[in-house]
Amino acid sequence: MQNDLKVFDQHESEVRSYVRGFPTVFHKAKGHKIWDLDGKEYIDFFAGAGALNYGHNDEKMKQKLIDYITEDGITHSLDKATKAKGEFLEKFHEVILKPRNLDYKVMFPGPTGTNTVESALKLARKVTGRTNVVSFTNGFHGMTIGALAVTGNAFKRKGAGMPLTNTVTMPFDNFLDNTSSDLEYIERFLDNNGSGVDTPAAFILETVQGEGGLNAARMEWLKGIEKICRDRGILLIVDDVQAGVGRTGTFFSFEPAGIKPDIVCLSKSIGGYGSPLALTLIAPKYDTFAPGEHNGTFRGNNHAFVTATEALNYWTDDALEKSVQEKSKKITSFLEDLLKKFPELKGSLRGRGFMQGISSEIEGLADEIAGKCFENGLIMETAGPDDEVFKLFPPITIDDEGLEKGLSIIEKSVTQVLEAKELVTS
Amino acid sequence: MQNDLKVFDQHESEVRSYVRGFPTVFHKAKGHKIWDLDGKEYIDFFAGAGALNYGHNDEKMKQKLIDYITEDGITHSLDKATKAKGEFLEKFHEVILKPRNLDYKVMFPGPTGTNTVESALKLARKVTGRTNVVSFTNGFHGMTIGALAVTGNAFKRKGAGMPLTNTVTMPFDNFLDNTSSDLEYIERFLDNNGSGVDTPAAFILETVQGEGGLNAARMEWLKGIEKICRDRGILLIVDDVQAGVGRTGTFFSFEPAGIKPDIVCLSKSIGGYGSPLALTLIAPKYDTFAPGEHNGTFRGNNHAFVTATEALNYWTDDALEKSVQEKSKKITSFLEDLLKKFPELKGSLRGRGFMQGISSEIEGLADEIAGKCFENGLIMETAGPDDEVFKLFPPITIDDEGLEKGLSIIEKSVTQVLEAKELVTS
Amino acid sequence: MQNDLKVFDQHESEVRSYVRGFPTVFHKAKGHKIWDLDGKEYIDFFAGAGALNYGHNDEKMKQKLIDYITEDGITHSLDKATKAKGEFLEKFHEVILKPRNLDYKVMFPGPTGTNTVESALKLARKVTGRTNVVSFTNGFHGMTIGALAVTGNAFKRKGAGMPLTNTVTMPFDNFLDNTSSDLEYIERFLDNNGSGVDTPAAFILETVQGEGGLNAARMEWLKGIEKICRDRGILLIVDDVQAGVGRTGTFFSFEPAGIKPDIVCLSKSIGGYGSPLALTLIAPKYDTFAPGEHNGTFRGNNHAFVTATEALNYWTDDALEKSVQEKSKKITSFLEDLLKKFPELKGSLRGRGFMQGISSEIEGLADEIAGKCFENGLIMETAGPDDEVFKLFPPITIDDEGLEKGLSIIEKSVTQVLEAKELVTS
Amino acid sequence: MQNDLKVFDQHESEVRSYVRGFPTVFHKAKGHKIWDLDGKEYIDFFAGAGALNYGHNDEKMKQKLIDYITEDGITHSLDKATKAKGEFLEKFHEVILKPRNLDYKVMFPGPTGTNTVESALKLARKVTGRTNVVSFTNGFHGMTIGALAVTGNAFKRKGAGMPLTNTVTMPFDNFLDNTSSDLEYIERFLDNNGSGVDTPAAFILETVQGEGGLNAARMEWLKGIEKICRDRGILLIVDDVQAGVGRTGTFFSFEPAGIKPDIVCLSKSIGGYGSPLALTLIAPKYDTFAPGEHNGTFRGNNHAFVTATEALNYWTDDALEKSVQEKSKKITSFLEDLLKKFPELKGSLRGRGFMQGISSEIEGLADEIAGKCFENGLIMETAGPDDEVFKLFPPITIDDEGLEKGLSIIEKSVTQVLEAKELVTS
Repeated sequence: MQNDLKVFDQHESEVRSYVRGFPTVFHKAKGHKIWDLDGKEYIDFFAGAGALNYGHNDEKMKQKLIDYITEDGITHSLDKATKAKGEFLEKFHEVILKPRNLDYKVMFPGPTGTNTVESALKLARKVTGRTNVVSFTNGFHGMTIGALAVTGNAFKRKGAGMPLTNTVTMPFDNFLDNTSSDLEYIERFLDNNGSGVDTPAAFILETVQGEGGLNAARMEWLKGIEKICRDRGILLIVDDVQAGVGRTGTFFSFEPAGIKPDIVCLSKSIGGYGSPLALTLIAPKYDTFAPGEHNGTFRGNNHAFVTATEALNYWTDDALEKSVQEKSKKITSFLEDLLKKFPELKGSLRGRGFMQGISSEIEGLADEIAGKCFENGLIMETAGPDDEVFKLFPPITIDDEGLEKGLSIIEKSVTQVLEAKELVTS
Repeated sequence: MQNDLKVFDQHESEVRSYVRGFPTVFHKAKGHKIWDLDGKEYIDFFAGAGALNYGHNDEKMKQKLIDYITEDGITHSLDKATKAKGEFLEKFHEVILKPRNLDYKVMFPGPTGTNTVESALKLARKVTGRTNVVSFTNGFHGMTIGALAVTGNAFKRKGAGMPLTNTVTMPFDNFLDNTSSDLEYIERFLDNNGSGVDTPAAFILETVQGEGGLNAARMEWLKGIEKICRDRGILLIVDDVQAGVGRTGTFFSFEPAGIKPDIVCLSKSIGGYGSPLALTLIAPKYDTFAPGEHNGTFRGNNHAFVTATEALNYWTDDALEKSVQEKSKKITSFLEDLLKKFPELKGSLRGRGFMQGISSEIEGLADEIAGKCFENGLIMETAGPDDEVFKLFPPITIDDEGLEKGLSIIEKSVTQVLEAKELVTS
Repeated sequence: MQNDLKVFDQHESEVRSYVRGFPTVFHKAKGHKIWDLDGKEYIDFFAGAGALNYGHNDEKMKQKLIDYITEDGITHSLDKATKAKGEFLEKFHEVILKPRNLDYKVMFPGPTGTNTVESALKLARKVTGRTNVVSFTNGFHGMTIGALAVTGNAFKRKGAGMPLTNTVTMPFDNFLDNTSSDLEYIERFLDNNGSGVDTPAAFILETVQGEGGLNAARMEWLKGIEKICRDRGILLIVDDVQAGVGRTGTFFSFEPAGIKPDIVCLSKSIGGYGSPLALTLIAPKYDTFAPGEHNGTFRGNNHAFVTATEALNYWTDDALEKSVQEKSKKITSFLEDLLKKFPELKGSLRGRGFMQGISSEIEGLADEIAGKCFENGLIMETAGPDDEVFKLFPPITIDDEGLEKGLSIIEKSVTQVLEAKELVTS
Repeated sequence: MQNDLKVFDQHESEVRSYVRGFPTVFHKAKGHKIWDLDGKEYIDFFAGAGALNYGHNDEKMKQKLIDYITEDGITHSLDKATKAKGEFLEKFHEVILKPRNLDYKVMFPGPTGTNTVESALKLARKVTGRTNVVSFTNGFHGMTIGALAVTGNAFKRKGAGMPLTNTVTMPFDNFLDNTSSDLEYIERFLDNNGSGVDTPAAFILETVQGEGGLNAARMEWLKGIEKICRDRGILLIVDDVQAGVGRTGTFFSFEPAGIKPDIVCLSKSIGGYGSPLALTLIAPKYDTFAPGEHNGTFRGNNHAFVTATEALNYWTDDALEKSVQEKSKKITSFLEDLLKKFPELKGSLRGRGFMQGISSEIEGLADEIAGKCFENGLIMETAGPDDEVFKLFPPITIDDEGLEKGLSIIEKSVTQVLEAKELVTS
């Protein structure tokens, strides 16, 4: 095959998206690098939008996966018991849940983020007998109707083609300038009997909003939200699909806040290798779905179980966590320096951990920078309701050299874009 | 790991389902056979509920997959262009679409059945500006809110925890005894300005309802439905997730009816090897989603592209189709004989092709037979609103020996169950 | 004031409707006659769409009303107790409910038909905890969102500007040609666990559909519907707003069927004199609204209580009932003769009692006939999803002379219209 | 009839409400006074919840009404043209609209508040093609499903028995303590593309929330809201059902703000005499309902047209306005003094014009005071989400003597209640 987009232009739907921003045919990938058919190398600061926290084709997972396939381990098993699944369940409990004093039951809801979100929303409504769910401004939870109804993005919502109902949006931390009143605002809406906001089954939120523009909630805000829920018998669902599995420096993104959500949604990097897998973690008292009440054909993706189990070895000690936390500081420093060096960006720092970026007030600038990065050999996406944020999402396993090289491409690209716009002079 | 369900009982959610009917830990699989940890062999007449039409771990696909992984082919790519994806698109066009005179654009909507259904419903509503969708009695389309709203099963619908709206159910072929009036009934509802049925964006249907109880629509009924849609500017969506990819003897289940749906949903066996993949096929004039208007993290599952492309080699000539059609007759004969031999079953034949089974009026009997089959070394599930149908779903690539062995286990199991219930005497 | 429509054209909204079909300014009215500002007399076969069953300005009610106003009887009282209201409640119980062995509690829900329907639907949902309601093809229940959702008319439904949800339409008696299967059809939808029709809180229906085209359900169909509801714990709501208060020959339209609805909606003629009043009659066991849970400013319209109480004197013996039943036969004979005489009408007889008419297959013909009647001094409206029915709705207190005069105008008008269209020759 | 509630207890639904707070049978009424069957006189500071702004049985209206009835003026006319209706339309234009430079078209939507609200919401959705409507905390707009969905009160909302959809509640002026940020908050939700608040068809609000607890919006807030709507193509609906027709000192409550709503809802006092009537005033460019697209049986209540026309004589000069404004100050002074005198009330002043009252933090106190007032010969209701406000709603035509007598009863009752609770000592 040639490095040629013709086949995509001819046969793929217009809905295709990233191929437009990164117009080349990729073929191989390893760690933080990918190569196109011409052999051009790119540093991947996109990481599958958080699905490749361990980078591409991690060598240990790769071997386990090849071994499994070679020995004809069962590939597809619905929710029958398999060795691969059992080993994952056991190790996930031992390595992740138990040390964090968590006793979640694990549901496999179909292997995508939107599916775990849908299962969580259904369960919360079933458990409480209430229909309303509170979501947050700039939250992103998926494209199927239930998940889309708790997603803030106007463009995505329009795709529904019908009204999205049974949800109410509340302001995420910092949505308004006057941040201190946010929680009071929410409480007032919940407690005033005339507010028009029906008592919700659940709150659903991301601790750091990925697609929404790298908005990182403060830990005290998260604690406040948990308290609001507990005091009123409302379930707290944390959608950790993008921010989970180490992206912010701890396995779950909510750990530093010291909260315990009633339901946690995991997908993306939980499979380790980039294969579809999703988990819905459920506090035991709410584990009340009847057998098969929510199901799905691919909830038993054994290839993903195999690599997911191997990936958990990254979490048997705190080496990875420490490394991520340390490198996060480097990213923060880099971005702060960039903002200082280029006030012309009219930018501000966003996010935390390995999901940081810069929001620019200049319309279209983030996209131009991402485009220039691509030319310069780095893949990076934009986020936010107006795509106003460029978003650094390297694999959390990236080495120092890779990270620095990536950052230097970003700096170079920013410079080039600003010069081309004559906002700065070289 | 031991062949022990303790880890599942302790750590997995109560929603787990098939593990209860098939209580053992599976490990290896090949073709139509799977083995548990004790090495016990089972013939698989379940085939991943249609996700394993080519059987387990097909040797050619396996080699391609291992090669791809070994050479560090990119695993996860969102909807960026990759060699694996390009080759699939090209081959799918050449081998499947072009020979059938179909010009669908291909959308990758996230790799599960419910996701392709959601994308199809959203698109139909967007295209027409209408919100209502007509579904059919005993239709099954998925567990996310949009797809669940077009799913008939009361137990599954309750799981939503809220009203499912913007849909109307019409009678599927043969839902009423008086079959001839079904289409008239539907037409009357659509054409009478006082019917209360708002003009729908689309009809969505399965040509053979898998979960709904193996109800096979007659070809003239399908033609009639297509005409009803065409005459009124209503889109026709065929959900071929379970009945497609050869299960009924042709690649698309609707081919014998000579109809051309506006949108086709594919998933389950399209990936070939049991890895998650889904396609939404869209008539070009309706290919109007804006870039990214519907998206999903795992819409670029390259492992599945690799095996899916290899799987298409089964369709370069008509050998498989002929084989399936021939073996289907054997299945039909077997079931007809069974019904004759055991009038005590109070049963009737259902389905077509490799999705046939027997519906029994005796409450719980189908489940007992499936349970006995498991004891006797065969995996088979039940279907229908009251689980009243036992459902023969062998891989379509099964050889004669495997098929006959499977059928004989079923016959033996039926006999044992009826004897145990003293409905027949040995 | 002149007999001039200018003020209406200038100041009234485009939504005004009947003024377009009857373009004159009316002023006085008595019994079955109304006069415009030029003194032209019209026979009223419209009767306020069933709100003037006792004709205009009944002399006895008029005196009671003037007396009440003269003595400064309280006019507006919300739902406080008043003498006028107490007397109505007592007499309604004595004259209407008790003799019919009915023990309904009386709710005053706001003085319009749509308001009683809304209160009935809310109560049925509250009582059962279910959200779905079954309505019937060509049912008409009102213009507010809850009532509009159970109304079949496509033009009216579009006015909602949003999807109308939580309802399912079933075929009314005779909706399909094959009438015998209608009830089976409904039962099948309710009992099949895969039908997609969620168990409803209630059925709501009119025994004779007024706006829907004078479709009269057979008594055995109504009995069948009641049985379907009773067997499944579904509430039966009869909307007797138009067909009630004697219009079909008995006080309640459902009396000949021998059924006892759980909730009955009354409005239009219950006030007697044409003043706004509505009642929701509730079986005691379902009388579970909390105080004020449904309310409304004009639920205590004492003028209407005064005339309503006087009107009940028509029901202390069976004279009116017998008269209506006898005159109904005359209307039937007249319409049958008309159909025989003018096969060019391509018509069929519709309705029963004092709500009969002719449905014509010729597009626009019913409207032309109504228009010609107006020229000839008779007011009559059309109904049905395509306005295909002309509808004889005289006051039920009309004398023989008035009735015959009205019928002769209709015959004359039909003749003139058909001649003008050269469908018949004079 | 005896002054006995037995007939109501036996025959009326449990939903009856005010009769519980005012347990006597009323019979006669005049101006600001009503008498029960025992001849006991009550001062009416309730005034039909704003439906009796001109007091009971105004003498001039009474004569016009008796004359009309005596001469057999047509009572019920649907939306046919009548002399009574034409005269009302003309005078309403001349006396109310023209002097205020307003050019609304007048729709008669069925004679209740909820009906005008439903018609307004439907029209706004139709005109804009959008489904979402923004309502405000503690707004009250009616009991039918469309109006209930924009009503804040949790108890009333529960009565729906199903989710209320297609609406979003925003904070009314002063809902949060930090009032200055309210408008910014709303703007931010509308303008942020990720807020999850779909662009609404309309805002609907009361300038002074009657049922919601006498919350009076500041004029600059109303101006701000109008600007927000205009800038974004959102319709502004003012529900002036309770606050309109002079209750706040001008005919429309929004006049002092200098705003021009796109749609205005009027009912309650517009009929003058307490008979059901409602108007929807529509800016000509939005007058786009098709004929009959919204209708209703009692939209032509000629008795109400007759009294409504006579009532407009109160507005031919500014005497009434001045009087109301002057007396409003007396009420304000009285309430301020009361608050000073009785800090034990833990109260605060609410409302403006003839819709003022006191909100008390002491649970149940407002109800106790209203109960004591009843004993002392004054009718007054409570409002607010927790019935925490007692609400002075005298007729706006009350004379000084009546007003003072009423106020003195309130003061006496407050004293008695506080003494009885030993909060103050005599």
